[in-house]
Amino acid sequence: MSAKKVIALSGGVGGAKLVLGLSHLLAPERLVVVTNTGDDFDHLGLRICPDTDTVLYTLAGLADPERGWGRVDETWTFMKAVQAMGGEDWFNLGDGDLALHILRANRLAEGASLSQVTADIADSLGIGAAIVPMSDQNVATMVNTPDGALAFQHYFVRDRCAPTVTGFTFDGVELAQPAPALMSALNDKVAAVIIAPSNPYVSVDPILAVPGLRRQLRECAVPIVAVSPIIGGDAIKGPAAKMMRELGVEVSALEIAKHYQGFVDGLIIDEVDGDLAPEIADLGMAVEVGPTLMRDLSDRIKLADLTVNFAARLEGGINR
Amino acid sequence: MSAKKVIALSGGVGGAKLVLGLSHLLAPERLVVVTNTGDDFDHLGLRICPDTDTVLYTLAGLADPERGWGRVDETWTFMKAVQAMGGEDWFNLGDGDLALHILRANRLAEGASLSQVTADIADSLGIGAAIVPMSDQNVATMVNTPDGALAFQHYFVRDRCAPTVTGFTFDGVELAQPAPALMSALNDKVAAVIIAPSNPYVSVDPILAVPGLRRQLRECAVPIVAVSPIIGGDAIKGPAAKMMRELGVEVSALEIAKHYQGFVDGLIIDEVDGDLAPEIADLGMAVEVGPTLMRDLSDRIKLADLTVNFAARLEGGINR
Repeated sequence: MSAKKVIALSGGVGGAKLVLGLSHLLAPERLVVVTNTGDDFDHLGLRICPDTDTVLYTLAGLADPERGWGRVDETWTFMKAVQAMGGEDWFNLGDGDLALHILRANRLAEGASLSQVTADIADSLGIGAAIVPMSDQNVATMVNTPDGALAFQHYFVRDRCAPTVTGFTFDGVELAQPAPALMSALNDKVAAVIIAPSNPYVSVDPILAVPGLRRQLRECAVPIVAVSPIIGGDAIKGPAAKMMRELGVEVSALEIAKHYQGFVDGLIIDEVDGDLAPEIADLGMAVEVGPTLMRDLSDRIKLADLTVNFAARLEGGINR
Repeated sequence: MSAKKVIALSGGVGGAKLVLGLSHLLAPERLVVVTNTGDDFDHLGLRICPDTDTVLYTLAGLADPERGWGRVDETWTFMKAVQAMGGEDWFNLGDGDLALHILRANRLAEGASLSQVTADIADSLGIGAAIVPMSDQNVATMVNTPDGALAFQHYFVRDRCAPTVTGFTFDGVELAQPAPALMSALNDKVAAVIIAPSNPYVSVDPILAVPGLRRQLRECAVPIVAVSPIIGGDAIKGPAAKMMRELGVEVSALEIAKHYQGFVDGLIIDEVDGDLAPEIADLGMAVEVGPTLMRDLSDRIKLADLTVNFAARLEGGINR
């Protein structure tokens, strides 16, 4: 491929794995990672951005490989002191992680935008790729349940995904604009748009709900390819499978294809789901079958390579 | 003494030692500790209150005995991460210490007053005595130097007390009012006012500069006694002696007496300074000579006992 940019839409853990693979494959100036900010929330006066931070820590080589969030070699003295003082302790904040939250909250209070602050933090962590929160305006993913709507982190962390999901709303999204760096990336030469194997409902949909963004991504007139987060009827991590069951859809890569139908040009599904390829193709998208489980860095780079090459092969066929 | 209250004015380390002694001697409801807030400052979006926090940690049994500030068994992962991210790192904030700063900043942002928040923190730490920041309005001690004025923590921590001191100003003090809990303590039955062995210029004077407070303390018509922070021509800790030299006054308990002349009824000086007693008495105050070096808890309780008894003995002679 040329020096055109690759725009990757990413949630947290799963998305960050593919993004890490892409970062090993592409020159830094070619990679633009758009992160979901629907999970972001205010906690103890700090602005916490879980998906953005997971991508930052992953690309900086600071992510904890076991936990899936936060920093490696983390300590927890702060949380113990918060608990001893009777403070809110349902959301774990590591001592090193606090540096990012405090520096960011301080910059935001001084009037900097989330995307400016994120770019500076990425820079200070030695990350070459552009890490762009989807919007500088706050968007709050709400998880609808039979007992009312829950703020995402209340559903996800405090209530450990126990409530039954009936749907999602993205509060504030009607007033959100794509972050300036995303706008300018859309106006650059783009090679492909990649949807990482993140939760479609709460990681990717909030990004695509930013007014105009869906249209602008398609108007790039480059292949848009997604990687299915569902492998063999289950999600690798997180509540995607549970959500699908509760929403009454089959937990299957086919449903992922249906979810993205009309937006993506191609879907990568795992080898174990190869028999779904014809049905997915019938939905009007290209299908690539390959190993999508990312156990180690080598797997991540291979899947990134598969994804980028799949998009490149589709390029000729794109005619919108 | 009766169940009347003892009001203690305190700065950081030295003051907190005497306050700890007083807390072992007096029923919790009898002790009101008024802390200097002139050292307080905003840092990384947090409100840091060094003297108040030293008193809180000391009375909660959480103070680090070696360092003289912050918490025992502290970790420093946050500071390392701040440094790695190029953040401001001249002021050390321990991981556990951050719990206090973040919980306080969050409450202040929600509209609570500093004295309310401090009372709640003291309560959560199991402290029975009232810990009252002198004022809910911000007062900033400025250290005047030949090269201009320095915010106190810039002088004290960042510049390690190196600049030559020419004087002090307490920015904002003209708009400060005594904190409500201090006001109500002044209207309670008071047994004595104790000035802890803290730096007279930057720990005690800011408190006494709060408009009306000096007069109100005297109008309690109870003995006001101070403990000299200067022992044998030097300060135990901190820049008091250096400041005195730079201000052109002798580093001597006699100068402490002169500093408080007209306000205190009695001064406690160390045994090594016993020969100064006649000169101090000539200034119009009672003098008590005793062991004022507080090496351990037993020393602290003994000095607290000496101070309280000295005040009690003076009570009969007070006639204002």
